Formats: sequence, structure tokens, C-alpha cells
Amino acid sequence: MRIVRICGLSHNPNVTLYENYADEIGRLIASGTLRAGDPLPSVRQARASRGISASTVFQAYHLLEARGLVRARPRSGYFVLPRPLLREAPPPSRPLAGSHSVAVSELVFEVLSAVKSREIAPLGSAFPSPELFPLEALRRAMNAGMRKLKPWSTVDDLPPGHEPLRRQIARRYLHLGMSVTPEQIVLSNGALDGLNLCLQAVTKPGDAVVVESPCFYAALQALERLGLKAIEVATDSATGIDLAALARLLERRKPQAVWLMTSFQNPLGSLMPNDKKRALVELLARHQAPLIEDDVYAELYHGDAAPLPAKAFDTEGLVLHCSSFSKSLAPGYRVGWALPGRYAERVARLKLMTSLSGSIPAQAALAEYLQDGAFDRHLAQMRRRLQTQQQQMLAALEQHFPAGTRLTRPLGGYFVWVELPPQIDALALHRAAARDAISLAPGPMFSARAEFRHCLRLNTGHPWTPQIEQAIATLGRLAHGLC
Amino acid sequence: MRIVRICGLSHNPNVTLYENYADEIGRLIASGTLRAGDPLPSVRQARASRGISASTVFQAYHLLEARGLVRARPRSGYFVLPRPLLREAPPPSRPLAGSHSVAVSELVFEVLSAVKSREIAPLGSAFPSPELFPLEALRRAMNAGMRKLKPWSTVDDLPPGHEPLRRQIARRYLHLGMSVTPEQIVLSNGALDGLNLCLQAVTKPGDAVVVESPCFYAALQALERLGLKAIEVATDSATGIDLAALARLLERRKPQAVWLMTSFQNPLGSLMPNDKKRALVELLARHQAPLIEDDVYAELYHGDAAPLPAKAFDTEGLVLHCSSFSKSLAPGYRVGWALPGRYAERVARLKLMTSLSGSIPAQAALAEYLQDGAFDRHLAQMRRRLQTQQQQMLAALEQHFPAGTRLTRPLGGYFVWVELPPQIDALALHRAAARDAISLAPGPMFSARAEFRHCLRLNTGHPWTPQIEQAIATLGRLAHGLC
Repeated sequence: MRIVRICGLSHNPNVTLYENYADEIGRLIASGTLRAGDPLPSVRQARASRGISASTVFQAYHLLEARGLVRARPRSGYFVLPRPLLREAPPPSRPLAGSHSVAVSELVFEVLSAVKSREIAPLGSAFPSPELFPLEALRRAMNAGMRKLKPWSTVDDLPPGHEPLRRQIARRYLHLGMSVTPEQIVLSNGALDGLNLCLQAVTKPGDAVVVESPCFYAALQALERLGLKAIEVATDSATGIDLAALARLLERRKPQAVWLMTSFQNPLGSLMPNDKKRALVELLARHQAPLIEDDVYAELYHGDAAPLPAKAFDTEGLVLHCSSFSKSLAPGYRVGWALPGRYAERVARLKLMTSLSGSIPAQAALAEYLQDGAFDRHLAQMRRRLQTQQQQMLAALEQHFPAGTRLTRPLGGYFVWVELPPQIDALALHRAAARDAISLAPGPMFSARAEFRHCLRLNTGHPWTPQIEQAIATLGRLAHGLC
Repeated sequence: MRIVRICGLSHNPNVTLYENYADEIGRLIASGTLRAGDPLPSVRQARASRGISASTVFQAYHLLEARGLVRARPRSGYFVLPRPLLREAPPPSRPLAGSHSVAVSELVFEVLSAVKSREIAPLGSAFPSPELFPLEALRRAMNAGMRKLKPWSTVDDLPPGHEPLRRQIARRYLHLGMSVTPEQIVLSNGALDGLNLCLQAVTKPGDAVVVESPCFYAALQALERLGLKAIEVATDSATGIDLAALARLLERRKPQAVWLMTSFQNPLGSLMPNDKKRALVELLARHQAPLIEDDVYAELYHGDAAPLPAKAFDTEGLVLHCSSFSKSLAPGYRVGWALPGRYAERVARLKLMTSLSGSIPAQAALAEYLQDGAFDRHLAQMRRRLQTQQQQMLAALEQHFPAGTRLTRPLGGYFVWVELPPQIDALALHRAAARDAISLAPGPMFSARAEFRHCLRLNTGHPWTPQIEQAIATLGRLAHGLC
């Protein structure tokens, strides 16, 4: 397992050049040598002083950005963040070796059912606040879309699904520099349906599938439901899965597939840098192992530029990329899509076999809504709100939580991963919090073997209110009590 | 296997009293002794002349009605149909013994994809004509329903689903004399989704499941997808599955579940009489075997009274009853429901795990539409149309198809099952018809082992047009050529 250490100037032979350089800068920030607003060395300076290539410098700075320590300003280079992290980010995970069957559902359903009550502070929720979405504009789009629907749409729109919506989705990939045609897209009932269909398309019961550690519980539930085994791989809270560990696994264990969230991973919030995504896709292609890419948070980035999906680097059709509008535009519509590459026909057939098609009115409404710039205006506003809410949450956590707590500061999405001091049992905290009408997502939900017992995922997708601030204060008090 | 023979007055010890009596009447009709418009003996007459009970007489007359030979007139008794069947109904099936894994998908997808083209006469389609549905009224209901939706509906309406719609569905069961509460209902993405979830709730890979012979291909596909084995049981084209054969199987083979269409079965159109449904439920309860009841055609009955589902007789929560609005009101909305009895929570959880929830706008639209009597007015009109279209189709088949062809005359739904003379290969006819832009559903689609090679399912759900009449004439000519 690769361990990123902020350990000074000495070269650690187990990490790459750019990681070493990033660690060095990180230490300068941690020690106060570099302070908020200070510029990082320019590429020219770094090349001259360290003898490293421009590409290495950029990779290092991207990594520091992913860690929440620095940010780029257009045409001015990189600067230390105005409010540097008081808390260290959690170290990469160290999952137990081996594959194992999965049974996380009881805990997951317990937490999900708590979230349904409006009386409970929704820190354990998987959804952003429904108030963040343009419901009235969507209703108008629905009405307009339904007027255009022809009776025969019920037959025409069988999988792969409503063509005008597939065309709009393909158009959005163009903005990322990706060439996607409507024919390559299969619409699904939200991303979860697409992910389940893609997983089923490439596996059979008993197969082993690589997941992150920690990973999205719905991936574990999908494995459980289909009788698959999970192999958990160490995952860095900033940059995602450990590629070296993955490479060893592919060599030795021949897993049937890999299921990852490459951008703003749930629960860590990690963002694989583009180069790492490219390396991931190349590695998997060498082993002809399909990648199921859950990319539902990609639109919710904080910076100026959308991250690329791993799919952007897929030349062999081995990446089954899934996304949806559920987190970014229209929760409850259950409209998602898959780009299953060489498995597209198989996925479309599984869609036909399991639920015939998605709901056509919802597909028509979104096709209508996406016709003009409304979606991008909505997203710009939503991203700003989520970023602000994250800052508010992090500030409150730093104020109220015990010393020794580590926090992630993701560059997108709406989760913060909290690593409590090791003596605090997150399940005990979860039960105590439930008595105070606060939900949270305890770490064991995100592991096939109930690891991460002193970790939590908290939702930053709700507008900051006195109720939520109070909930964080209460959680902090409870955590102190469990120390 | 039980064989219903129209074999005269002698008592056949292998069939029940009422079947013997029905066979006797059937022979009188076939021989011309009883003619169109003639009344059947009254209950009193039959009791006196034959020494059988009133219940036996009624069962016999229901069976004759199911066979399309007679019809009841309110307060006047039973009469031989004005236009009696020239063709005999097909005999019960004789499936090969044993359980077997399933692979029907290639043929099914070939037929389904042909149906997508508007240029092709849709005799192989599984859907009624989209022109039969009240699209404009649904659009208005959608708009009204969306105005009422609160932002938090996306959380509140997670499985079991939108409460106002579950309430409306429960209310409709009341008209059947069934007491159903909204809490017992789990909404699904059409019935197919519900059926798949129910099947998964009660089985694990490798289990054996009883199905009809022939049976709906989606049931076979579901078994195939989940690694289950099919046990096919003889099924009468009038009254459904052979209970004696099922009883023997339950005893000897201990199948994990039974999946049946109890009313207007696809493809046969068979309707299990209420008493037989009750006996089925009691039989399964003795073996504690769950019944997955696919009941999507129940609303499309031709007579005056809706058939009861097997669920009506379920006192132990062993019947997982599934239905939808896709065939009766709103295809493309993908709104269905399950009444999974004791498995309700498991099914709701599987729904959460596989696609989170159904599409909320579609659920809200249907809740709105169902508030007044519009649905019943629409259904009354649709039933009349389907009945007329069936008569037109049967008349054309009798005119154009070769001697020796047998036809079902279902009392609901929109399929006719055609048994061709045994030397005609339905797959050859399918291929020849495709060249003439005619789709049909060849018999092997409906069997795990590609049986029914000389059978077809034809769709009577489309308004009768010269194009369809021509297609039947062409099919008849092709069938003659293959004799």
C-alpha cells in the first residue's frame, strides 16, 4: 500500500517524484513557512531549483489542490489557500486483504430510514437538500415536453431511451472534449439502476469485484444482491484508489471488474487527477478488466473546470460510465444514463429485461429543460452554494470536534469524511446522535467488513441553519464524551 | 397431465365432474345439436337431469365461457355464442419433464426489435396500440400533480413510494372486495420491475421456479438473469395451470416459488376461475411456497365483472401480487406496484438497492388522474374496443388460416394463441413474415426449451385496419405455403 507522508525533503523511494515534491510543499504549509495567500514556486523556478520537469511540477500542484491546500488562479499560478486546513486529511485506508461476501444492508437501511423524517438533522443523508433544485422550471419543462410526446413514444423510447434526451446528454460531453454519440448512451432509472445493470452485464455470481476502501454502500449492496465478492483497495482521501495496489491485485487475483467513483468519491470526496485516471484506464486495459465508473458528482465541482471522467481516456470500450441528473438537477425524476462502451447492447437488453424502460415523461421533461442554458446557470449557482455550505460545515467541525479529528476538504460533491480519534466508536456516536434527532453515516456502512469504526460521513448539501450548526455542536459534545 | 377432451357422454375418471359436463355440452355444440343463440339447460334442469350440484353446473358453464363457446346474459342464463368458434381451442400443453436453465433472450430481442419499426404490422408486439390511451388527460393530470409536489417529495416518496398513489390503488382493490392498505403496496417501475424484485426476494441462484407452459418470456428472462431453473407445468388455454400436476411437483421437487399469470395469461389468454384460484392459493399455502402473481391484464376483461386475483384468497401473505398501469392507462410512465404480502419490506429494500425509487412525477400524475371516475370511463371504452378487435382478428384468422389451426378466444387481454397444423414451423413463418413486414411472436419465445414450434401469439390490441387485415391474409397464405 502506498502511503503519502508529509515528511520533508528526503526522497521517499516508494512514491513518485511529483508526490515527493507535493509532500515537501505540504510540509512547508503545515509548518507555516508558506502561509495563506503565498504563491507557490512558478514552474520555471521549480524546474531550476529542483531539476524536475514542468509536468512533475504540475502534477504536484494538482495533488496539493486535490488535498485542499492550494488553489490555482487563472494566469497567476498557484497560491496557498486563504484559510488553510487546521485539520490534517485522513491518511489512505489500509483495508484487510482478501475478498469477502458482503452484508452491510441492515445498517444502511437503519440510517436511510432515519433520514426520511423531517425532524431529524439530515447529516447522514445521501442527498443534497431538495430546496437546491429548480422545481418550477422543471414543471414547465415537463408540461412542454409532454405536449411534444407522440403516442408512439412508448414504443420508440424503449431502451436505449428517449432520443432527444440522449442527444442532449451527448452534447454535454462535447464540452468536456469527449466525442459521444446518442447511440452509445443507454438511459436508466437514475445512476443506481445503470450501475446495477452494468455490474450485472460484466459479472456472474461468485465473481470478485474491486471497490474502494471506504466505498459507496450501494456498490456493496449491489455486490451482495448479485452474489459477488468485494476486494477492497486502499484509497487516498485526496486522489482516490491506490493504483500500485490495484495493479498487484489485477495480476494476482484476476478480479472480474472494478467499480470506482473517480470524481468526488462517496464517502471520501477524493478526486483522481486526470493523469491518474488515464493511468487507471491504461492499467485496466492491459488486463482487459472492465471499469464501472460511478460519476454522479462530477457536475458538482468547486473550481472553474469540470473534472474529466476516466471514460475520457477509454479507447477500448472497457469503461462502463454511469451518471444521472439526480444529484445535479432533478432528484425524484430517476433519470440517469450509462455509456457502457462495448457492453452497450448487453446493458440495453438487461434494461429491457428488468424494467422495460425508464419513465418517458421524466426523460421528455429533461430533454426539454436541457435545450437552453438554464442547466448551466442552475449548476453555477448550486456549485457556489455547495462550496459555501462545505466551508461552513468545516469551520463548525473544527470548532466543535475533539483534537485529533481529521477531515477531508473535497473539491466537489457534498460530503465530508471525518476520522475521529481512534477510541471513538462511530456506531456508538450514531446511536447517541439518533437520540438527539441527528442522523449521520457511520464509517462501517462503507466497508464490506465494517471497518472505519471511528469514521463518519457528513452531508454538506443542506443550507446552513442554526439547527444544523446546533447539530454539529451536539455531535462534537457527544464525541468528546466518547473520547 | 390433465387432458380435457371433447369426447362425449362417457365419464372420464381423470377429469372432474364439471369438466365432464362441460365437455359434453361442448360436444353438443360442435355437433350442431346446440346452435348459436340456444340456451343451455338451466341449473334446475341440469340438476334434475344429471344429478349434479348447482355449483358443478356453474363451474361447467364458466369453463365453457372461458373456452369461448357460450356467454352469460344477465338474469337469462347461458346461451351458445351467436358466432360459435369454427376452430377448436388448443389442448392443454404437455411440457417436457424436469427443470432447466433458460436462454430465450436472443429470439425475444429479435422479435422485440422488429416491433419498434412503424412500418411493420405489429402482430408480434406485446403492447396494445398507444392510440388507445388518454394521453391528453394524462398530461393535464401530470401538470396538476406536479404543482402539488413538494420539494421534499423526493425523500418522502422513497420506497414504498408516493403515498397518494398507493392510497388510490388500495381504493381500487376495495371494489373487488379486497381489503388492501397503502402500507402493503410497494410502487415499482412498471410491473416487470416489481416482478423481478419479488422473484429476487424469494429465491437465490440455483433455485427452481414453476412457470406455465407456455409462459410469458419475461418470466423466463428473469429466471435466466438470476440463475434460476424453470419447471414448466401443463397449462390449459382456457383455465390456466394444471393444479394436479402442480401439486405433484410441489410434493416431489420442492420448487422455491411459482410465477403465474392467473387472469388472461400471456400468451394463452387463459383465465383461472375464482374457485381454481382459491384452490391454487390453498395448495401453495400447504407447501409454504410463495406465488408471484403477474396480474397486469386483469382490468382488460371483456365481460361485466372483473376477475379476482389469486391474492384475494391469500390469508398467509404468501402471494406476491404485481400489477401496473402500463397496459390499462399509461404505457411509458412505468408505474406499477407489488402487494408482496409478508415479503413487503424485503421487496421495498430491493427496490431501494436497485434503482432507489420510481419516477415521482409519473406517480404524482397517476395519483391525480385516479381521483375521479375518468379511469373507469376510459377502461370501459378500452375494453369494448379490445373485444371488438379480438372478434375482427378471430374472424380473419378463421377465414385465412389453414384447416387444422386451433385458436384461443380469451375473455380479456389482447392476445390470441394460434396452434398451427403441426407441420408448420412457427420460426419459419416468423422469418417469412418478417420479409413481408409483419411481426409475430413465435411459440418458442414462450418456453424454456423452445417448445410450441407450431404456435404463434398474435396481438389484437391494435385498431383493425386494412393493413392488419392484409397482414393476416398474408400470414395465412404463408402458412398454407408451409403446410
